[in-house]
Amino acid sequence: MKEFQKLNDLSKHARILQGITSVLDWDQETYMPSGSIGIRSQQLETMAELIHKEKTSKKFANALGQLIDIKSGKLKSHALSPEKIACLNEWRRDYLHDTSLPSKFVKEFAKVSSQAISAWRSAKKENAFQQFAPYLDRIIQLNREKAEYLGYKDHPYDALLDHFEPNLTTQEVSQLFNKLRIQLTPLIKQIAAQPVNDDFLYGEWPVDKQMSFGQKILDAMGYDMTKGRIDFSTHPFSSASHPTDSRITTRIHPRDLTSNIFAILHEAGHALYEMGLPQEHYGTPLGESRSLGVHESQSRWWETRIGMSVPFWNYFYPILKETFPGKFDSIPLEAFYLAINKVKPSLIRIEADEMTYPLHVILRFEIEKSLIEESLNVRDIPEAWNAKMQEYFGITPENNAEGCLQDIHWSMGAFGYFPTYTMGNLYSAHLFEAFEQENPQWEQRVSLGQFDFIKRWLEDNIYRHGKRYTTKELLFEATGKEFSEKPYLEYLKNKYGKLYSFRLKARNSNFKNFSA
Amino acid sequence: MKEFQKLNDLSKHARILQGITSVLDWDQETYMPSGSIGIRSQQLETMAELIHKEKTSKKFANALGQLIDIKSGKLKSHALSPEKIACLNEWRRDYLHDTSLPSKFVKEFAKVSSQAISAWRSAKKENAFQQFAPYLDRIIQLNREKAEYLGYKDHPYDALLDHFEPNLTTQEVSQLFNKLRIQLTPLIKQIAAQPVNDDFLYGEWPVDKQMSFGQKILDAMGYDMTKGRIDFSTHPFSSASHPTDSRITTRIHPRDLTSNIFAILHEAGHALYEMGLPQEHYGTPLGESRSLGVHESQSRWWETRIGMSVPFWNYFYPILKETFPGKFDSIPLEAFYLAINKVKPSLIRIEADEMTYPLHVILRFEIEKSLIEESLNVRDIPEAWNAKMQEYFGITPENNAEGCLQDIHWSMGAFGYFPTYTMGNLYSAHLFEAFEQENPQWEQRVSLGQFDFIKRWLEDNIYRHGKRYTTKELLFEATGKEFSEKPYLEYLKNKYGKLYSFRLKARNSNFKNFSA
Repeated sequence: MKEFQKLNDLSKHARILQGITSVLDWDQETYMPSGSIGIRSQQLETMAELIHKEKTSKKFANALGQLIDIKSGKLKSHALSPEKIACLNEWRRDYLHDTSLPSKFVKEFAKVSSQAISAWRSAKKENAFQQFAPYLDRIIQLNREKAEYLGYKDHPYDALLDHFEPNLTTQEVSQLFNKLRIQLTPLIKQIAAQPVNDDFLYGEWPVDKQMSFGQKILDAMGYDMTKGRIDFSTHPFSSASHPTDSRITTRIHPRDLTSNIFAILHEAGHALYEMGLPQEHYGTPLGESRSLGVHESQSRWWETRIGMSVPFWNYFYPILKETFPGKFDSIPLEAFYLAINKVKPSLIRIEADEMTYPLHVILRFEIEKSLIEESLNVRDIPEAWNAKMQEYFGITPENNAEGCLQDIHWSMGAFGYFPTYTMGNLYSAHLFEAFEQENPQWEQRVSLGQFDFIKRWLEDNIYRHGKRYTTKELLFEATGKEFSEKPYLEYLKNKYGKLYSFRLKARNSNFKNFSA
Repeated sequence: MKEFQKLNDLSKHARILQGITSVLDWDQETYMPSGSIGIRSQQLETMAELIHKEKTSKKFANALGQLIDIKSGKLKSHALSPEKIACLNEWRRDYLHDTSLPSKFVKEFAKVSSQAISAWRSAKKENAFQQFAPYLDRIIQLNREKAEYLGYKDHPYDALLDHFEPNLTTQEVSQLFNKLRIQLTPLIKQIAAQPVNDDFLYGEWPVDKQMSFGQKILDAMGYDMTKGRIDFSTHPFSSASHPTDSRITTRIHPRDLTSNIFAILHEAGHALYEMGLPQEHYGTPLGESRSLGVHESQSRWWETRIGMSVPFWNYFYPILKETFPGKFDSIPLEAFYLAINKVKPSLIRIEADEMTYPLHVILRFEIEKSLIEESLNVRDIPEAWNAKMQEYFGITPENNAEGCLQDIHWSMGAFGYFPTYTMGNLYSAHLFEAFEQENPQWEQRVSLGQFDFIKRWLEDNIYRHGKRYTTKELLFEATGKEFSEKPYLEYLKNKYGKLYSFRLKARNSNFKNFSA
């Protein structure tokens, strides 16, 4: 298979260039001097052009066209293994995507979003939505054009979703999110009425101690420090150029102890996925992470399902106490556990708890969809936003800066991105159900500080497959069940139901045996 | 001038790619996880191929060939400004160099030197020169072939020198180095007989205090922290991808206080040169540093001419005392100054003082030249090395690890590189003579903590010219005098002559007014 080998080689070459871009991005957010931003932009632009050129080259198209009909997707050979077929499908998908947007459009999109980002920044600062509105209007118009270029069956928003999460449709998201909204809204209102004390999480926490505690978590997770590292940045992120170079960053909150802990769990969850991808397939679809949604399922797995669980803190709470002597002497584990799982409707998505987070995403999805289908005008966003905030959370922003202007995503032109956050949670819960069944002793083991079996399960069921399967196939392969929203809803209802009734009788229970 | 603009654009594009390589190199030496070395090598190899392809492209050759005859170097237009002519000459030079080595040869060279490096490492460890000898033999053979490919007039070593320092010839180096050797050798033997106490420079020096002192030096030099940064690495280096991104590293010696100080002065001297190159010419020869030798003149300027001078310590010694309270209470400035300028023949080049350093380089040059012209066999290197050590320094290495195996350069295939170190010192002294004449008050000003006029002088006379002039032209433009070795020899004789007689009467002198 000379053609297949050629595709492999070309694909790997482009992947190496993308990895170099990752290093440049990482450096920009961590150590780059502030005055270097101009040349860094030129470097990134140069790399983007090179990569685009390689991914859309005639050489690549010719080799691909020998094995699969690029237009129809029909395979040209019957002698292909399922792995090779998966590669061809992914290569074709990427090629169609990369060639569908005219370079004039791509440049215009980049220019407009660059202007929109800076307009958004000042509009947010000055709480002046009307300043941002014309830019957002243009961004939405460009996203509609993008959808036409990319193509779709039912709804233009399908094309935008599919870009970030292949095969995900507007209809599916609508149905899933409706179910979540209907079931979670009343629950949240019920919980929100119960005050929870988490004052003891706030104070002065020396950075070196925070980081030595964070390192213990990374070690427990199986994050390999010879193939990664941890640094600081304004917003935590993970960045991988190869399974052997998968880095994370975190942020030290001026007063909140848990901010850094959950950032580390989240980002290391992403990073472990990249570290676990099969090196022998590096540069081919079989060596790539499945999708943004699946990626988010991995970060949320470690952040919420493990890191916000009772067994995790059975093991780590004594270590935390040792790290900060005296600080938690009067705080029983139950009270600590309740505090880190405090549910409170709030205005800002990125500060939201596990329970209210999905509603923030649902709100954004509904508004995005309306904007793309032109059933909502840009000028009416603030009103629509605030009405939904009141309906879902029972609170209303005092201004647009803490309302519809809070996120950078729209100014970047990223429509269709937000839903992947919640899809990640849904995938995570679907997977966790199978994990629990296969590891009925997981809570006991984690309580004793045994974590390696968790990473092993994810390696076996997620990491090693790369893009071998579609997201839905991957979820089925891992669990033997069709993907459903039920495990997620059940998990939330169970955990927070128990938690909020449990709180009243905590003092008499044997917490070590409590199962969240 | 459409062609010229095209050359500018192509040249800038390749330069941006080289800048990306610098970021990758910097990361590799500072923060990269150890396990990422495999993919990093692939990234660097990929970039090197891309750059080579761009610099030797038909597009580039065609545009260049319109303006200058590539073979003869004859200009094809009379309407060119001197700046444009300088660019064309430099582009032609680079193009001829990049196309003269067949890619098969380049790959073979890379493969052999990669093997030789690892053979050298273990040979040095085991003090077994004979293990390294066959690799070195092959390296020399390849360097001879390289010289034939590159071409030369009189001596094959000319081609190797010219690669690192354009227009420098074996004959010129031989003559210069002979003069240095003849005049310095007896002086060193005389000085070496006088013991100097520098015990107080060794001890426990907290890293944070060392770095805060180093930062004060950087600030005084005018090193702009918004366009650079300082980190740690095994060997200090400077790395610039653009005048707005010019970084340095340093190393903390376990006991020697001055190691870090002089590393910072040295590397920041390099970095200031890169920061000072004209941004408007970035990517063209007018925006590039002149040569390795001129670069070294800038680092040694700050390290030795400024940083090892009396006025520098007139200003900084009180600050050093404040930084390390109590440590220098009983050490007068004179004793400190003498200690940091202690001359002592030693075996290891990179630990050598200002006076003996050139002899280490001269020894290497003489051996390299003999090897390339085949008047010395590889197997006879240890004997030749040790004989020269005895002759020039009066000492003999106990083994080859601290003798002819100490440097990595030969294993990397870098023949013709060592001389640029000493050329840098010679250039620096030649320039400094003019600087002193134009700034007769420089010692008083530096003693008061005024440093900005130094950088300004270098900007005016060196930085802003890029490759506008050849090295010799640049030295003439800056000084009005033909380059000569005399200022360097006079400087050394004057400084160390005074220093070693001065030591006896130090206590009665008014040190503040002493001029080194």
